[in-house]
Amino acid sequence: MSKATIKDVARQAGVSLKTVSRVINNEPTVRAETREKVQEAINNLGYQPDMAARNLRGATSYAVGLVYDNPNPYYVVDIQQGVLKCCRELGYGLQIHPCDASSPQLIDELAELVLHSRLAGLVLAPPISENDDIVQALADRSIHVVRIVSGADAPGGPAPAVHVNDRAAAYALTDHLVQLGHRRIAFLSGEEEHRSTPERRAGYEEALQAHGLPVDPALVLPGRYTFDSGFNRTQALLAGPDRPTAIFGCNDEIAAGALAATRANGMKVPGDLSIVGFEDSPFSRQSSPPLTTAAQKTEAIARQAMLRLIGAMRPHTTEEMNSGPEADVFVPNLIVRPSTGPVTSR
Amino acid sequence: MSKATIKDVARQAGVSLKTVSRVINNEPTVRAETREKVQEAINNLGYQPDMAARNLRGATSYAVGLVYDNPNPYYVVDIQQGVLKCCRELGYGLQIHPCDASSPQLIDELAELVLHSRLAGLVLAPPISENDDIVQALADRSIHVVRIVSGADAPGGPAPAVHVNDRAAAYALTDHLVQLGHRRIAFLSGEEEHRSTPERRAGYEEALQAHGLPVDPALVLPGRYTFDSGFNRTQALLAGPDRPTAIFGCNDEIAAGALAATRANGMKVPGDLSIVGFEDSPFSRQSSPPLTTAAQKTEAIARQAMLRLIGAMRPHTTEEMNSGPEADVFVPNLIVRPSTGPVTSR
Repeated sequence: MSKATIKDVARQAGVSLKTVSRVINNEPTVRAETREKVQEAINNLGYQPDMAARNLRGATSYAVGLVYDNPNPYYVVDIQQGVLKCCRELGYGLQIHPCDASSPQLIDELAELVLHSRLAGLVLAPPISENDDIVQALADRSIHVVRIVSGADAPGGPAPAVHVNDRAAAYALTDHLVQLGHRRIAFLSGEEEHRSTPERRAGYEEALQAHGLPVDPALVLPGRYTFDSGFNRTQALLAGPDRPTAIFGCNDEIAAGALAATRANGMKVPGDLSIVGFEDSPFSRQSSPPLTTAAQKTEAIARQAMLRLIGAMRPHTTEEMNSGPEADVFVPNLIVRPSTGPVTSR
Repeated sequence: MSKATIKDVARQAGVSLKTVSRVINNEPTVRAETREKVQEAINNLGYQPDMAARNLRGATSYAVGLVYDNPNPYYVVDIQQGVLKCCRELGYGLQIHPCDASSPQLIDELAELVLHSRLAGLVLAPPISENDDIVQALADRSIHVVRIVSGADAPGGPAPAVHVNDRAAAYALTDHLVQLGHRRIAFLSGEEEHRSTPERRAGYEEALQAHGLPVDPALVLPGRYTFDSGFNRTQALLAGPDRPTAIFGCNDEIAAGALAATRANGMKVPGDLSIVGFEDSPFSRQSSPPLTTAAQKTEAIARQAMLRLIGAMRPHTTEEMNSGPEADVFVPNLIVRPSTGPVTSR
């Protein structure tokens, strides 16, 4: 008897693959009646989520690794959840490997990890995923990887990739501020080794230029993806002679820091200063006022990356779950909240 | 030649075990000179962090699982980091398994995880770790587990445990408020299935009673460990006839929600209302004003739990890293910040 696939379950239950996946992942959004139908089909067919992967792979590899270097717990947990969703659908375990992206031993460290833990492959998150030398070196050692990268276009190179068009989203955020009348918009960067920083900055500059506005280098500040970085640089900007009327924080933590610094200076948001962030993290919703931001679907991005990793190794395992290459591109959406308003004359 | 241990490395380099561990974990707090000395000893001795574990274990198990059901990314990432630290010292990989603590299939799910991913054992975080039936069922299936639990005393049962004396810390927080003159202190609970909720509430009640103050049931509110839960219940309290002068949030997210609701009502903290949280998360430091809280050393707790898990299976592997049973008890420290102040007459 050939093993039942997730497709067989969906057909017998009369539901979509997505619904079967939701039931396997115990997601609360499935109606009880549907859940029962799917569970019945799973039982009838003797379907086991792990079987497909297990049969195709021999006995060696039941897990993949997730490699990241990111100080933001919200991002880390979202990316873990997304990879795990797909892992559960396909019967893989997930090992996590936070690491130091700047370590000169990183390639050896990752090769040892794959060998020692017998991993089927690695999901690489930024900034490690954006280092072409590391990706090439891993490919040269026949290690399967997939990359999650920031970029307007699909990256080349030896590994499959999922990419996030940060540039288009940063353009939309900046355009929103310009349409509110802002002309002096500061840009608070994250780490340069995260490609999202130059990509978001490029979108910011393109939007200014599209409106015939100059890019003032004094308003483009280097920094880090942290609350403190946003706080300190906003303090410096507000102490200066020619203040901006708006601040573009390269992520929500920077923007939350900018908001706190503005308040510490006795200024009002958005009355005295408009602020935008990036990511749509809980920070952006819980701050007072809530932040205009760009919603980045980190969990969906990570799930798609895992699908591409397994798809590159075992096309038959994933073909029924796969969609076209357009599924590999994500564009964060503009979300307008009360932290941005019309520029006021002063 | 017998394999070098972490102790041999420490002796040859003339540093503590902790320092060797820091070097292995690439922690930035080690001076370059010390790092070099340790690296040299590692090279001289041919020490490999994974060897000790690998030799003792045969070929089957190179990973442990971390099982949790927690909505707070800061807690999740801290607990992962702590377990991973010890994993790296001992040569284990770490699989993560977030799950639904209320699932009736949880025991089967965990048994299948251990079998399928060939895990050496499981680190159980609250609330799963606090469910005696689950712990017993896993022990009955000969699955090695360690529990991280909330409690004033060491729990009994078949598995080793690390415990956090939330009760003593909650006593200290409440005592701090009473000494500032507060008499009407509301307690905003987290989920009851997390033992930390009744433990912290017991500490709150004991401190009130020690000062001869009544426990007013109208001020003890059920809820969840979330920002929104803290926000909504504080709104309700402030709309009522007999307002409290202080709020004890069962964690920092609840307290941050209480702070936002207080501000939304046009009231000042601590002038109109004092607020305390619990955990010392970044929330508590970045809020305005910063929150009085209890510092919970989640990373150290998790590292100790992993040490106990491996210690129960392979005493020789960990004996040089182990300390006495007092190392298994953690008491969060009171941290006083500007969110608490003397009660004012109104």
